[in-house]
Amino acid sequence: MASISKRVTFQVGAGAADERTLTLSSMSNDGHLISIRPFVTPSKNEKSFPFEWGFACTSDGAKINKLDSKSMTIDFNFEFDTNVQLEKENTHRGVINTSWKTWDSGLVEERGQVFPFGAEKEGVSFFELWQPIDPAEHRFVSIQSEPQAASGARSVVLSLNNGQYRGLIVVVGIWIQGILFKENDSSQESINFLRAIETPAGEWTYLIQFGPDFDKFPNSINVKQGSSVLAGSTSWTVIESNL
Amino acid sequence: MASISKRVTFQVGAGAADERTLTLSSMSNDGHLISIRPFVTPSKNEKSFPFEWGFACTSDGAKINKLDSKSMTIDFNFEFDTNVQLEKENTHRGVINTSWKTWDSGLVEERGQVFPFGAEKEGVSFFELWQPIDPAEHRFVSIQSEPQAASGARSVVLSLNNGQYRGLIVVVGIWIQGILFKENDSSQESINFLRAIETPAGEWTYLIQFGPDFDKFPNSINVKQGSSVLAGSTSWTVIESNL
Repeated sequence: MASISKRVTFQVGAGAADERTLTLSSMSNDGHLISIRPFVTPSKNEKSFPFEWGFACTSDGAKINKLDSKSMTIDFNFEFDTNVQLEKENTHRGVINTSWKTWDSGLVEERGQVFPFGAEKEGVSFFELWQPIDPAEHRFVSIQSEPQAASGARSVVLSLNNGQYRGLIVVVGIWIQGILFKENDSSQESINFLRAIETPAGEWTYLIQFGPDFDKFPNSINVKQGSSVLAGSTSWTVIESNL
Repeated sequence: MASISKRVTFQVGAGAADERTLTLSSMSNDGHLISIRPFVTPSKNEKSFPFEWGFACTSDGAKINKLDSKSMTIDFNFEFDTNVQLEKENTHRGVINTSWKTWDSGLVEERGQVFPFGAEKEGVSFFELWQPIDPAEHRFVSIQSEPQAASGARSVVLSLNNGQYRGLIVVVGIWIQGILFKENDSSQESINFLRAIETPAGEWTYLIQFGPDFDKFPNSINVKQGSSVLAGSTSWTVIESNL
């Protein structure tokens, strides 16, 4: 079921819980996902790239194993990872094993370990807490004991891989999130992000417009599966659509 | 400024973060407050009194010290405390010192210590995380970087103290929360809770109706300061109203 969740807590190792970002993670009906994590108030050093992290993958990169109605594991292997793209040192590479538990209150806890110094070195545990939100609302409306609110939401996914660029756009309800990497470039300028909400009139309100190739994101996504969407000369493939 | 906040995390000592309740804390313009903490899925033992805790006080019991725009301390001394009313053992008595910090994301962290085994014994630290919500909405709509959403909200407080019963009702926006204790009775039956939302038509949808004296809560609160509100033969005094 397509869902969109807002992170409320991030805690690393023995550090204190905090949340400096406005992180939204979208997952489509078919399990394609994207997470964009912009700082709300970036520090001076963070201003040129004001994101804690961004990643995305098709369902191939997120192996979900439901344990019961309240818990599951997800093994992530991101196709798009800003840390990898930027060739950042001391950041994790490869599969990340995570455990998920839905609390009585409807919040969802995620726990896992990353290995920033290599798979053989000591891991660092992390804890993230997620609030599922109503994908039909532009404000952040908590989904409490009403998960059916999200069912029937628009779920559209676009993919790009033309040798020069690769990208993924996941649309859940009115929320559009996209990532676009330039190939053979590990500079900050190779990374582009899109976050927008669609108004009832079909217009987009942009919340994040980041990167020099932002114009390669399309500005309309109401399309059937298997069709193509053009953004200038860039052609995206619709790999999922419930329209 | 009147506010209403939903708790998203509760963590005691070295225990894991969790949230088993649907806790809402209301604070009026004048600083009168109430917090009702019902379990979402009470265990068998919790069913007869399905609340983690409930407390309330006028502003006399919540000494607020603003440190800067993002942080404050509050020293609580609750006039209404279900643990005290029930004469529960190994629960805190007297002032609780707390520190509050607003995160970049708009969530608000509360940290403090309680002394369940007495003021001279070892304390137990706690961490609670709060999401301010829009008091005009019946769903839980996060207030992000729009705190002005709460300004101008209805703020009405009713007090009762007639020797037989004492109570406090705090109304913020459409949210009505009340507590009522029977005097000289430490049984569960001495405790009553009210949580309701008012529809645009002025009708109340009850979310919590608890206790044998629930009918002593009024069912209308659109009143001026200094006036009285009757519930049967019980007369409540309006100690605050911006109507």
